[in-house]
Amino acid sequence: MTIERRDLRPEDVAIRVSHCGICHSDLHFAHNDWGMSLYPMVPGHEIVGTVTAVGSAVTRYREGDRVAVGCLVDSCLKCPPCSEGEEHFCVEMPTFTYSAKDRQDGSITFGGYAESLVVREEFVCRIPDGMDMARAAPLLCAGITTYSPLRQWKVKAGDKVAVAGLGGLGHMAVKLATAMGAEVTVLTTSPSKADAARAIGARDVLVSTDEAAMRSAKGRFTLIIDTIPVKHDVQPYLALLQPKGQLVIVGQIGPLPELSTFGIVFGNKALAGSQIGGIRETQEMLDFCAEHDVMPEIEVISPDQINEAWDKLSRGDTPHRFVIEMPQRT
Amino acid sequence: MTIERRDLRPEDVAIRVSHCGICHSDLHFAHNDWGMSLYPMVPGHEIVGTVTAVGSAVTRYREGDRVAVGCLVDSCLKCPPCSEGEEHFCVEMPTFTYSAKDRQDGSITFGGYAESLVVREEFVCRIPDGMDMARAAPLLCAGITTYSPLRQWKVKAGDKVAVAGLGGLGHMAVKLATAMGAEVTVLTTSPSKADAARAIGARDVLVSTDEAAMRSAKGRFTLIIDTIPVKHDVQPYLALLQPKGQLVIVGQIGPLPELSTFGIVFGNKALAGSQIGGIRETQEMLDFCAEHDVMPEIEVISPDQINEAWDKLSRGDTPHRFVIEMPQRT
Repeated sequence: MTIERRDLRPEDVAIRVSHCGICHSDLHFAHNDWGMSLYPMVPGHEIVGTVTAVGSAVTRYREGDRVAVGCLVDSCLKCPPCSEGEEHFCVEMPTFTYSAKDRQDGSITFGGYAESLVVREEFVCRIPDGMDMARAAPLLCAGITTYSPLRQWKVKAGDKVAVAGLGGLGHMAVKLATAMGAEVTVLTTSPSKADAARAIGARDVLVSTDEAAMRSAKGRFTLIIDTIPVKHDVQPYLALLQPKGQLVIVGQIGPLPELSTFGIVFGNKALAGSQIGGIRETQEMLDFCAEHDVMPEIEVISPDQINEAWDKLSRGDTPHRFVIEMPQRT
Repeated sequence: MTIERRDLRPEDVAIRVSHCGICHSDLHFAHNDWGMSLYPMVPGHEIVGTVTAVGSAVTRYREGDRVAVGCLVDSCLKCPPCSEGEEHFCVEMPTFTYSAKDRQDGSITFGGYAESLVVREEFVCRIPDGMDMARAAPLLCAGITTYSPLRQWKVKAGDKVAVAGLGGLGHMAVKLATAMGAEVTVLTTSPSKADAARAIGARDVLVSTDEAAMRSAKGRFTLIIDTIPVKHDVQPYLALLQPKGQLVIVGQIGPLPELSTFGIVFGNKALAGSQIGGIRETQEMLDFCAEHDVMPEIEVISPDQINEAWDKLSRGDTPHRFVIEMPQRT
């Protein structure tokens, strides 16, 4: 499909896309699972590339810069959250990178499964020197979505953190928490994922269908990052938390099975949620990943393999991220 | 009914009960709503009185001291939470003041609807000088149960806090949060409670059935203390939270209706729970209440009015606490 990118507004940056990660939410948006999709749709919000032109008012970027764009391309930039760099909490709703309405001309935003992108500079991040472009892509959603709750809940060296699910989000959560000094355990229903979990830094693997193992792990963790992207009972996981611990949902957006408050009242626990991150924190995350050499496991595909990758993703998470490499025209 | 209190062990304090508050959970325990009741039962865990004798190893209390006992009378005193003064999180389970098994002799513990009580000194708090005994009683459960989450979630001056429900717990939450400098709004289904709410310090009252008012209050609060003691949908309340806000359940112990994660993921919010508090924090709360003159609204009754008070409580919360005054034998 041929799409047209807008002429540069003064604050815009034009980007030639080199890579775009495939996020599970691309499938949800394509199928309108969350009731907010707009069509036609060009998915993709894990975007990296090179600046090809800048608008007259742009000060931070210039042609040739290696840059990245995540889930957001605009917001009101004035409300209290926006003023604090938390554009994802914009009280007027931020503008999503695709399947949303542009704030200025009302057109539908198109994402990164494309050759090029035009975005206002406030929503562009810089890719640290030396960072691999293809592997940087998934950081823009899978990276920030797991980095942000680890920071919000103040994970520190020695903390016992668990990660439920070992897909695109889960494997980043393992790497990031490990880089922060935590001892990470992967919670999974698939014993076959144990090797993959240990290979990326997990100290331990707990198979959630093993009742004896789950019983003996009661009260073990200070924080659980729950990346499971479907409806599931969180109560067995809440039991694994220490008093005052948190289970943070970053995968499933939708219903949970009926919950008893027993699991949160006894032990002062919290069932929390987390959603991407602001632009300032996204840049901080990119810099953290560069400093600690935390990079996603990826499988690079060409655009004609997207449907195949989506099929694989919809059949179950894979412990890596598919990244589309765009053909580079000259 | 005649019950016998044990002979004093070395670490025990004998107390002549002057007053005991009536907690909604007394009804739940009597009816075995939580499946853990032991009979025969003497309820009551908001106990104040005067020391009449002490065991040979007691160092902190002596005859004549004004003291208080809350929901706990023992714990292992060795595990990590106990070592940090959080006996309510004892990994071996603390011993509840009534309807539990004594750790040493296996007998059923009997609560404060009684003339006397024998408790080990580690679980006895001191009533600050000048504090009214009758009004002190409800602090031992309603007070600490609302004080503890306000501290855990770090309420400070200027914070916008809401309290859902205006019964025994709710009215204490209003007073305590106000004393901490927060601007408190009461969420209630009963417009008739507005005057009572304002009389105890609430700045505002939001009637949760008023859809327009609820819509306009979206994103207003940093913390909601939810004291509603029955199954209820928390999602309309979650919508009232600011980003990174918490709703803390202290009333309902049991199922919630099916919940979507939308309400916690968008805005990084948390659905948390809280359960009484440790002994150190209970003493801190008593001292805080003395310093800030925060005392519950009470209706003093005689033991022969207990059934009538229970009937009133089971029909709906009243914005005060019933406190039983024990006949004092000489």
